[in-house]
Amino acid sequence: MKWVNVLGGIVGAAALLGLGIILGHFAIPKGSDVPTPSIFQDLDLEILESIMQQLDASRIRENLRELSREPHLASSPQDEALVQLLLQRWRDPESGLDSAEASTYEVLLSFPSREQPNRVAVVSPTGNVLFSCRQSEQNLTGEQGGPDVVPPYAAYAPPGTPQAVNAAKHGVAGVLVYTDPADINDGQSSTNETFPNSWRLPPSGVERGSYYEYFGDPLTPYLPANPSSFRLDPDNVSGFPPIPTQPIGFEDAKILLCNLQGASAPAAWQGALGCDYKLGPGFQPNGDFPADSQVNVSVYNRLELRNSSNVLGIIRGAVEPDRYVLYGNHRDSWVHGAVDPSSGTAVLLELSRVLGTLLKKGTWRPRRSIVFASWGAEEFGLIGSTEFTEEFFSKLQERAVAYINVDISVFANATLRAQGTPPVQSVIFAASKQIPAPSLGGLSIYDNWIRYFNRSSPVYGLVPSLGSLGAGSDYAPFIHFLGISSMDIAYTYDRSKTSARIYPTYHTAFDTFGYVDKFVDPGFSSHQAVARTAGSVLLRLSDSLFLPLNVSDYGETLRSFLQAAQQNLGVLLEQHSISLVPLVTAVEKFEGAAGALDQRISALQKATPDPLQVRMLNDQLMLLERTFLNPRAFPEERYYSHVLWAPRTGSVATFPGLANACSRAMNTSLGSPAWAEVQRQLSILVVALEGAAATLRPVADF
Amino acid sequence: MKWVNVLGGIVGAAALLGLGIILGHFAIPKGSDVPTPSIFQDLDLEILESIMQQLDASRIRENLRELSREPHLASSPQDEALVQLLLQRWRDPESGLDSAEASTYEVLLSFPSREQPNRVAVVSPTGNVLFSCRQSEQNLTGEQGGPDVVPPYAAYAPPGTPQAVNAAKHGVAGVLVYTDPADINDGQSSTNETFPNSWRLPPSGVERGSYYEYFGDPLTPYLPANPSSFRLDPDNVSGFPPIPTQPIGFEDAKILLCNLQGASAPAAWQGALGCDYKLGPGFQPNGDFPADSQVNVSVYNRLELRNSSNVLGIIRGAVEPDRYVLYGNHRDSWVHGAVDPSSGTAVLLELSRVLGTLLKKGTWRPRRSIVFASWGAEEFGLIGSTEFTEEFFSKLQERAVAYINVDISVFANATLRAQGTPPVQSVIFAASKQIPAPSLGGLSIYDNWIRYFNRSSPVYGLVPSLGSLGAGSDYAPFIHFLGISSMDIAYTYDRSKTSARIYPTYHTAFDTFGYVDKFVDPGFSSHQAVARTAGSVLLRLSDSLFLPLNVSDYGETLRSFLQAAQQNLGVLLEQHSISLVPLVTAVEKFEGAAGALDQRISALQKATPDPLQVRMLNDQLMLLERTFLNPRAFPEERYYSHVLWAPRTGSVATFPGLANACSRAMNTSLGSPAWAEVQRQLSILVVALEGAAATLRPVADF
Repeated sequence: MKWVNVLGGIVGAAALLGLGIILGHFAIPKGSDVPTPSIFQDLDLEILESIMQQLDASRIRENLRELSREPHLASSPQDEALVQLLLQRWRDPESGLDSAEASTYEVLLSFPSREQPNRVAVVSPTGNVLFSCRQSEQNLTGEQGGPDVVPPYAAYAPPGTPQAVNAAKHGVAGVLVYTDPADINDGQSSTNETFPNSWRLPPSGVERGSYYEYFGDPLTPYLPANPSSFRLDPDNVSGFPPIPTQPIGFEDAKILLCNLQGASAPAAWQGALGCDYKLGPGFQPNGDFPADSQVNVSVYNRLELRNSSNVLGIIRGAVEPDRYVLYGNHRDSWVHGAVDPSSGTAVLLELSRVLGTLLKKGTWRPRRSIVFASWGAEEFGLIGSTEFTEEFFSKLQERAVAYINVDISVFANATLRAQGTPPVQSVIFAASKQIPAPSLGGLSIYDNWIRYFNRSSPVYGLVPSLGSLGAGSDYAPFIHFLGISSMDIAYTYDRSKTSARIYPTYHTAFDTFGYVDKFVDPGFSSHQAVARTAGSVLLRLSDSLFLPLNVSDYGETLRSFLQAAQQNLGVLLEQHSISLVPLVTAVEKFEGAAGALDQRISALQKATPDPLQVRMLNDQLMLLERTFLNPRAFPEERYYSHVLWAPRTGSVATFPGLANACSRAMNTSLGSPAWAEVQRQLSILVVALEGAAATLRPVADF
Repeated sequence: MKWVNVLGGIVGAAALLGLGIILGHFAIPKGSDVPTPSIFQDLDLEILESIMQQLDASRIRENLRELSREPHLASSPQDEALVQLLLQRWRDPESGLDSAEASTYEVLLSFPSREQPNRVAVVSPTGNVLFSCRQSEQNLTGEQGGPDVVPPYAAYAPPGTPQAVNAAKHGVAGVLVYTDPADINDGQSSTNETFPNSWRLPPSGVERGSYYEYFGDPLTPYLPANPSSFRLDPDNVSGFPPIPTQPIGFEDAKILLCNLQGASAPAAWQGALGCDYKLGPGFQPNGDFPADSQVNVSVYNRLELRNSSNVLGIIRGAVEPDRYVLYGNHRDSWVHGAVDPSSGTAVLLELSRVLGTLLKKGTWRPRRSIVFASWGAEEFGLIGSTEFTEEFFSKLQERAVAYINVDISVFANATLRAQGTPPVQSVIFAASKQIPAPSLGGLSIYDNWIRYFNRSSPVYGLVPSLGSLGAGSDYAPFIHFLGISSMDIAYTYDRSKTSARIYPTYHTAFDTFGYVDKFVDPGFSSHQAVARTAGSVLLRLSDSLFLPLNVSDYGETLRSFLQAAQQNLGVLLEQHSISLVPLVTAVEKFEGAAGALDQRISALQKATPDPLQVRMLNDQLMLLERTFLNPRAFPEERYYSHVLWAPRTGSVATFPGLANACSRAMNTSLGSPAWAEVQRQLSILVVALEGAAATLRPVADF
């Protein structure tokens, strides 16, 4: 999981402790002979149920142990060893897929120097080192040492050796980053309250991360990073941090921060280090350091072109092999990455094993093709998945049904959490209703989910609320660049039990198998629940005769965005003679066309449709998401072409182009270019919605 | 036909005279009962032949008479009357289509002022008018007078009243445009050698045209020109001429040009006005005007927002109604527009009548949907068709099989002429082989065509040569903006008989029904030949079970572009360390994938494929053209996204992005940004070709 978007997760620390373990060791049903493909092949609920039963928590646990045994930083030998592991699993004669291949890109990564470790120190005016921050985390379990544990660093932060204490008055020269116990540990920070004594972050823990602003290989925007591809000059790349940056642990941060002098920082900036945070400049006269000491930051990060591989495993569809349901996760981690990303890959491998076994036995072959993917170099900026979408843009845009992402599969044990675009809501609901939640006496995942995340839908009443997709994991290029309906599925926190930003050892050397096994998901029943949910969604998408994408659910989103625009921007727009009426009309047209389509689907399902009628309808469903793409809408937002889900500034949950243009125009005068841009964005939006509605109408009406 | 691209046409003036007339009055075969749609419905050669026979030259002639009776400038009442005519024909209970609708856009057009006619005069230093150019053409047939004949003007040229004789030294202040008899009349210019005594341009004839640089409504680039759409400020529109411009006849041009003094113009600039063309400045001392006289140009053109309509007529497909074969022509003309565009519309109406009659009788319904279109405001810059593609971008990109354009259907009587992208070559060949050429004793249109335009194909040997598509008519937005395989079909000149740039009365008030009836196509057999060819192509595309798009023919284009790049740019690129090897590899991959696809098609045609297998294959064929689109390849070239057919500068017939980037880089130093752009363009191209090849591979391989 990439660092930039981790706020969706919720911890249920207390819930971790008392959960029982249910393992699903059910016999694999004897396969029938190879079924004759029928063009009417539909989802087989018995096979689905059998798959649900075969997804085995203990095998997921064993997968995780193997995947997280060694640190496997992107492009490292250990990462490459996992490529081989995946290939071996997916080529297994008993439980493999139809085919599996690795494909390699040459991408720009950033690493700390082995020879010159990054360094943060307090130095006296005469240059004596008074204090040095740790250069590595404390070796608490024997897994935090050794040459393969990459020292904490801020990837893509430039090298340099700024020295200062508080440089705000003179322009910031360098940045130190730390994770406050208030944000990650519910305030706890002592050794006996933290890992390995609890799941909390120990004082030496440091969160690594990529500090590159965009995603994809930095040198090859919009082009796959093949060896012969055109590359930007690294000196001309935009999106890298402008100044040296280094993350440190809260143990060291405390020594620096609690010795500062000056005015108190604002209340929102205070944390749990046990002192009043000051703004500087300079150290307190009676503190640990002479008042005129300075902090010296030495960053020696280096950019390197490295080979990074994706692994793709294919199950050919029996009836519609040109329709691809994609399921992926990244493989690379910062250190051992037991939670991030191996908890997801462990689930991926178990799911592919169960499906592969049915396939090899001849019991089952999906209606549509399934593409499993293990992405490389996600932690550096979703690089493997982005390069893949750049390389296969046309093919994917024509044929991809949906993309399912399971990165971190288990943040915590409380509840399912799903993010996605509206068409996938219904299939996640359908799947989660038929799977029992772990340790809850038969309560379904759906019924448990609705207790934690819910909203009142004008159409359905109280339902679990689906989060929207940012750019926190590999779904980003699929939804934003390609307009493929996407989703991300995980188990997560009870937010009443913790306010931790994310699971505490995130991106540190403490995210290990033992950590997961002991604290995150003892018994792996949450992993199993995610495997079943994502597996059921995958099967439903790949096997259902009628695609289970409910496009009319987009109507609710459009309506709510519209209402937010009317309520929050209506008066302002009116003052600038900009009417929302065309937008209202467009939303109404969409709702009307989607409603009528729903009725035609119902009628067709009751009738005996010919296979082309179903295919035509499914094409309408599959391609609806594509109609919201406009590569000319936000040219400055790299890869973001989806007019509904592009990044939005400001707090109004409405159409991003409109919201952002209004923010920029707000303080400009009547008739300014910024107000013209508001009108242009409104037109772009109206055209997209009208175009979307047009694709939902009966196809013969043109 | 738009003025900017008329060089493809060829005149066969002598061939006009002796051609006999063959009219195809064949009885319409008795229709069977409504056929039950079968998902295996395929092209019925008997029905095709019956349609060929029913396409009636005399009815085309009557259509043309009706269409060109009155001047029908875009958005005029007469243009609107033709909208009603089309609706009436397409809604006829006996011979109409399934449905027909007009759709109206609000677009920016440019007209001369009625109150203040544009004026070109020679004035003395004291301001006396010594000579005035004609403000309208001579009324030779009674059709050149009246308020509905728009006076000659240069649409979108700004108003202004520059005065000078030769302003080159001081910056050009205004432009006069005329058509030289050398270019349009094979040198002839006298009254008795020109219309109405021959088909040649009379001395007073003036070619109107649009001088807007781009296409589409100037105020709404990339957005349909709906009333509520965002519009640019007309003062900020780029692409309008910067200075006043006015076209005049060669009669008046002679008086101005033959009185100039100064050095002789270069030989290539000399023409057939009967004097030595001088460069000025100033008039000759002993000429018609005092030497210090000046030319005064007064332009009073006005920009106006006007309603312009497209008319769409639909025949629903019986089996795959979501696959659209589009057939269109514009409706608006500069004056009567008998040739341009009514010769095409007359064919369109005859074709839709024959098909509509079969449809209403229940004899036939195509496998796929057919969309007939009558575009508005083409003469001002392909406006109607462009707005249509903007409005229905998603739907068209998903579902359009091909676009057939028949604008001017008959330039002259010698031969078929076709332009298009490679996938349509085979279907035009197949159609033209089965239709007799007019008056040639059974020689097929194909066999006649190959006599006039041919090339040696590495694959097929000697074949007729298909021209490439520029932006001369309404196919431009379909191919360049949407990546829909497109073609333009016409009958045209014998180039050994005339070097006229285009038919001589092009865009003048002399392009009338009588002109066509007497000079261009007496008997209308060439019109009939075009109706049959385009009709057969339409039927084959809409009815064939396997789409008759031969994508492997793209291989020849890629190979020839590659060879041109190697031969003409190879050394230069090598000097800058830019390798063509990745491009060679990409072309080879395309060829390999296309060849293998051809084999799979053959195998499938011999087998008994299920309907989904055929559909999947057809989707590969239909969507191949789309894979060459990259909206980020040439952001400065509005609407041009096709990496193979974007405008190309320079004479090397190769990939346009590469050629243009090389032209710009040529005189820059090693390592300049311009050379980096060459590399970027090469990568864009390689990625497109590799992506295209990927879509042609077996779909189940992913």
